[in-house]
Amino acid sequence: MTQMIKSKAAVAWGPNQPLSIEEVDVMPPKAGEVLVRVVTSGVCHTDAFTLSGEDPEGIFPAILGHEGGGIVEAVGEGVSSVQVGDHVIPLYTPECGECKFCKSGKTNLCQKIRETQGQGLMPDGTTRFYKDGQPIYHYMGCSTFSEYTVLPEISLAKVNKEAPLEEVCLLGCGVTTGMGAVMNTAKVEEGATVAIFGLGGIGLSAIIGATMAKAGRIIAIDINESKFELARKLGATDCINPKDYNKPIQDVIVELTDGGVDYSFECIGNVNVMRSALECCHKGWGESVVIGVAGAGQEISTRPFQLVTGRVWKGSAFGGVKGRSELPGYVERYMQGEFKLDDFITHTMGLEKINDAFELMHEGKSIRTVIHFDQ
Amino acid sequence: MTQMIKSKAAVAWGPNQPLSIEEVDVMPPKAGEVLVRVVTSGVCHTDAFTLSGEDPEGIFPAILGHEGGGIVEAVGEGVSSVQVGDHVIPLYTPECGECKFCKSGKTNLCQKIRETQGQGLMPDGTTRFYKDGQPIYHYMGCSTFSEYTVLPEISLAKVNKEAPLEEVCLLGCGVTTGMGAVMNTAKVEEGATVAIFGLGGIGLSAIIGATMAKAGRIIAIDINESKFELARKLGATDCINPKDYNKPIQDVIVELTDGGVDYSFECIGNVNVMRSALECCHKGWGESVVIGVAGAGQEISTRPFQLVTGRVWKGSAFGGVKGRSELPGYVERYMQGEFKLDDFITHTMGLEKINDAFELMHEGKSIRTVIHFDQ
Repeated sequence: MTQMIKSKAAVAWGPNQPLSIEEVDVMPPKAGEVLVRVVTSGVCHTDAFTLSGEDPEGIFPAILGHEGGGIVEAVGEGVSSVQVGDHVIPLYTPECGECKFCKSGKTNLCQKIRETQGQGLMPDGTTRFYKDGQPIYHYMGCSTFSEYTVLPEISLAKVNKEAPLEEVCLLGCGVTTGMGAVMNTAKVEEGATVAIFGLGGIGLSAIIGATMAKAGRIIAIDINESKFELARKLGATDCINPKDYNKPIQDVIVELTDGGVDYSFECIGNVNVMRSALECCHKGWGESVVIGVAGAGQEISTRPFQLVTGRVWKGSAFGGVKGRSELPGYVERYMQGEFKLDDFITHTMGLEKINDAFELMHEGKSIRTVIHFDQ
Repeated sequence: MTQMIKSKAAVAWGPNQPLSIEEVDVMPPKAGEVLVRVVTSGVCHTDAFTLSGEDPEGIFPAILGHEGGGIVEAVGEGVSSVQVGDHVIPLYTPECGECKFCKSGKTNLCQKIRETQGQGLMPDGTTRFYKDGQPIYHYMGCSTFSEYTVLPEISLAKVNKEAPLEEVCLLGCGVTTGMGAVMNTAKVEEGATVAIFGLGGIGLSAIIGATMAKAGRIIAIDINESKFELARKLGATDCINPKDYNKPIQDVIVELTDGGVDYSFECIGNVNVMRSALECCHKGWGESVVIGVAGAGQEISTRPFQLVTGRVWKGSAFGGVKGRSELPGYVERYMQGEFKLDDFITHTMGLEKINDAFELMHEGKSIRTVIHFDQ
């Protein structure tokens, strides 16, 4: 395929503006690139964060969206790992297999195309999106709010064709991030006590992960009690609202658990909650995993005594999951019924209504809205 | 033995006062307790920290000292794991084998007698030291600045009688803390790049640990360049003085190592250096271990992005080493020539001169002074 095509897309022209539904031009994939027809895309808090203008890497105009499911429409020169018709999940964390990071075996943070991706560009330093000749930037290397998008081959996980894209698209970000942080980053073991701070999509996914890991006690913490019902349904054994107590929530949890939890997860992006999450961990071995993304310039703090007495502070991005080699396995586990995704999908709508999806998220009324391009 | 005995001891009557050499009364060991004749004792920065009055748990009058080597003189009722004549190293971190912490297998921080030990008392809530009828407090459960001291049985590691107590006493604190942090807490692997901040006894021991772990590159950082010669002798491959640079030392190290180190160790107790130590770690997998003890109320901070992008912040006390079950093995490794201790011992003297030992330490002129009670 050497022709540009027309695509329906939601364009973010600038910070804090509603997305604008446009017909954009999508250039054909170059060498090592793939044209994907996006079938569905979740709308995630990170999209809203960038749209708010708070994201230091935010750049406009751009096509947001990074939690998609699609089908390969065409491949560029030299692409060998996917072919037309394959079902794929776009990866904002690619897996090249050759960089220092991939080769280390210790991290999923492939850095092969990090620099250009952070600039909203393809690896060759240009964009594939245009509107009336004006370039439009890519976003997180995915731009799934366009019906057609171009990605590097290394940014695509090929998944089971039987898997419903309207559900497994959620594995492209939030669900994998939460589940992976529990199973992959923390390696929660059977019987462990776990605290999960923040019951958005990531926190709820962390609950699922803790359930799959057979954690003995799963303590869910949020100030929005309307999240508690679903949290309990997914496996939370205790639901706590910090507003019900007149002391720090870490003290409450330490008392409740006879010394603290084995693992905690911060799924909000609030630096004060990150401290609480660390300090509610058990002396000697408790580990706290930061998942949420804090605002620019914000810092976490604690007394170093917390670490010297055996607590561990770590973090997780995309659940520590290596996208190309491990994400297809998550899809298989979903297909085998190990976990469900429909609980997360509170709303579905066509691309035209995407601004409603942001509104629902801001109001705390949705877990995930999934955009269906054929609606 | 049911009689009290007289003992030569250095008593700290109050903060910031010179230690006073006294003849004190030592009560006989009660059930589960052991009377030890201290043969040698290192003088450690932690003794000086408590003497300065900065230690929130500091209590006076007390007999300081916690890095000793001695011989069992008498045992109390029910003591079965050591007998008269055994060579022992006192443990400020005991190992009871029965508490939640010991049973976890995940930590060396036995809590069995934590509360009374923190109050300067034996487990029954009383002291074994008196001067003219006035009780004198124990220190870190050890009080090795007394020729005779009483310890709980669970606070004694029985070691090879062939081992020279004037050297292996250093395994009672500093050397084990540094070596253990590298080999036990961080589990540094062959070929790894390591940064060690602060070249006192603990930092130098961390260098030994890194050498034993066959680290590929060992970067030693201190503002006192007189430490560099010994650091190099012990195995440091690079010695860096932060004062030689006009940018943060973490940036210098990241450049020097093409992205950062695999492991870093803070061996000072300075919260700003703890941040540098974390931030000089490699994205994706670098781990930083806090060993130094910061002043009361001080806090560490960083941007959470440091953790989300794969760095790990942890801590280590007594090198994560379980005293009774693991310390005798360190003594054996020393006996087999795997590492040397004489490089650390820059001064030896009798108890009468102990205030000189503190002076040498404050002036940065000694690594370790070892007190010999028979001198």
